[in-house]
Amino acid sequence: MQQLVAELLKGNRRAAARMISHVENDDPLKRMLLTELYPHTGKAYVIGVTGAPGSGKSSLVDCLLQQMRRDGLKIGVIAVDPTSPFSGGAILGDRIRMQDHALDHDIFIRSMGTRGSLGGLSRSTREAIQVLDAFGKDIILIETVGVGQSEVDIVKAADTTVVVLTPAGGDSVQTIKAGIMEIADLFVVNKADLPGAERTTTEINIMLDMKKGDHWRPPVVQTVSVQNKGLDQLWELLQEHRNYMNESGKLETVRLERVKRELTDQVEYLLKNSVWEQVKEEVKLEKLVEEIANRKNDPYSAASELLEKISFFDQKTGKDD
Amino acid sequence: MQQLVAELLKGNRRAAARMISHVENDDPLKRMLLTELYPHTGKAYVIGVTGAPGSGKSSLVDCLLQQMRRDGLKIGVIAVDPTSPFSGGAILGDRIRMQDHALDHDIFIRSMGTRGSLGGLSRSTREAIQVLDAFGKDIILIETVGVGQSEVDIVKAADTTVVVLTPAGGDSVQTIKAGIMEIADLFVVNKADLPGAERTTTEINIMLDMKKGDHWRPPVVQTVSVQNKGLDQLWELLQEHRNYMNESGKLETVRLERVKRELTDQVEYLLKNSVWEQVKEEVKLEKLVEEIANRKNDPYSAASELLEKISFFDQKTGKDD
Repeated sequence: MQQLVAELLKGNRRAAARMISHVENDDPLKRMLLTELYPHTGKAYVIGVTGAPGSGKSSLVDCLLQQMRRDGLKIGVIAVDPTSPFSGGAILGDRIRMQDHALDHDIFIRSMGTRGSLGGLSRSTREAIQVLDAFGKDIILIETVGVGQSEVDIVKAADTTVVVLTPAGGDSVQTIKAGIMEIADLFVVNKADLPGAERTTTEINIMLDMKKGDHWRPPVVQTVSVQNKGLDQLWELLQEHRNYMNESGKLETVRLERVKRELTDQVEYLLKNSVWEQVKEEVKLEKLVEEIANRKNDPYSAASELLEKISFFDQKTGKDD
Repeated sequence: MQQLVAELLKGNRRAAARMISHVENDDPLKRMLLTELYPHTGKAYVIGVTGAPGSGKSSLVDCLLQQMRRDGLKIGVIAVDPTSPFSGGAILGDRIRMQDHALDHDIFIRSMGTRGSLGGLSRSTREAIQVLDAFGKDIILIETVGVGQSEVDIVKAADTTVVVLTPAGGDSVQTIKAGIMEIADLFVVNKADLPGAERTTTEINIMLDMKKGDHWRPPVVQTVSVQNKGLDQLWELLQEHRNYMNESGKLETVRLERVKRELTDQVEYLLKNSVWEQVKEEVKLEKLVEEIANRKNDPYSAASELLEKISFFDQKTGKDD
């Protein structure tokens, strides 16, 4: 196991791939591996790219990769596919193009599904980011479809978030308004050769101008990724936002918040595991469940009683980890 | 508060609406209210309707409502809108049609957003089901967009799950294949007047025939909801599945599983709350976070240390509830 970590730190791609598999499978080894890796993380800059299916995110990421490579950067890509939340192995037709980069040793691409547990996707994505960070990537790109809570949580792992829209008659602008405004650091109107691009751009700008307060005002950039148009500007703006994050001290703030969330998450994870260990030993859970099902008890009172019953003190920290 | 419960049990719509708001806002009163309601639940049959945006779910639900009302059933509808995971108040343009039913006293429609917390949506939806169950609804329809983990979790709250597809050139069948197969009790090919309906239907049937094992073989039904076509058949098949669930004993099994999950959830919820109460008092969390951010510690070891430090024993059950 320590060899796996050593190999990864040396830059062994297969070690990185295996490590992400451990993460994705929620392998018992995972926690130890991540502990070993942790001191080597914190260097990569994480960019989230989110947008509805069909907005051309993948092509855009594809173009960005070329831009970044030209600057000599090492890049990791994590493509999250929520359209198949059950299967681990997602079908990624439109991502095949990215395999062109697979021969490039400084680009590492991984698509992630989920193992079905709520919150599992966002946790394993965050952990995969840590793996690629320790692996020495300068930039980590996270590509997600921007619907559902998991995806929103994934976006929280990014230092810069790009929201990709298309000139879809202005409808899309209306729909995403509610939440996306708050997470976007940068708007892309992709497929800007389609009719309505100007109107969509104007609408977003108006919405952004109505919203006040933050020092960073998200720019709106038009791109046509298939013609490689607007990509220079996009890459420039991404770097500008990164500079802003650094200089304003905001990067430090959000990273501290992220660490706090990570710690919280870990505490709750340990707590849960150890309490269920105890419950297994000391409480007739099946009987309790039946009582509740027959409405002789309710889940709220039963939960309190259950916690009173078990002597939680001794085993609480899951020492065997 | 007890008055609110009494009013709800008497059939007061405003009491039901207020109760769901308590649930959605994760109000401190919530747990007490749900405890009071619990003995009155367990009677409603829950039907989940899931499908991609544009598959015509809302119209389908609309038609189903008419069918069910004709049979004298009281119905609750919970429409979950994940396209705006941030805002509580979702923009529900295509749901306005349903307001026609708003005057019908035996139909209660509610759309739910989320308060942003991961898992929050699926929890509050489950709790809203309990409210409408105690409120005396015979059938509760849950409408969700079938992407993202939350939605999948919501589906787990349903006794019967309907997956709505459209004849979209067969593409959709390919994409959903992975997971949806496992949750669907019934497939609807909606907009069956569009070209490709037969092929899509055949493809689903082939996929279903390849998969073996379960006693219930999900039927595939074609509908054109705008012409009210196929709705009789759909409603018949829904009732057939309900009978199957009852007679096979499967309904009891899944409901026991659901109670178990509910109990688990409650235990973990209490546990988390009380541990963070303790942490607030006894641990300098900010300092720990900073240490981790500077890579002098890691979240995994820190979490173990933190749990060792706090004396969890006394306060663990959150007695003040």
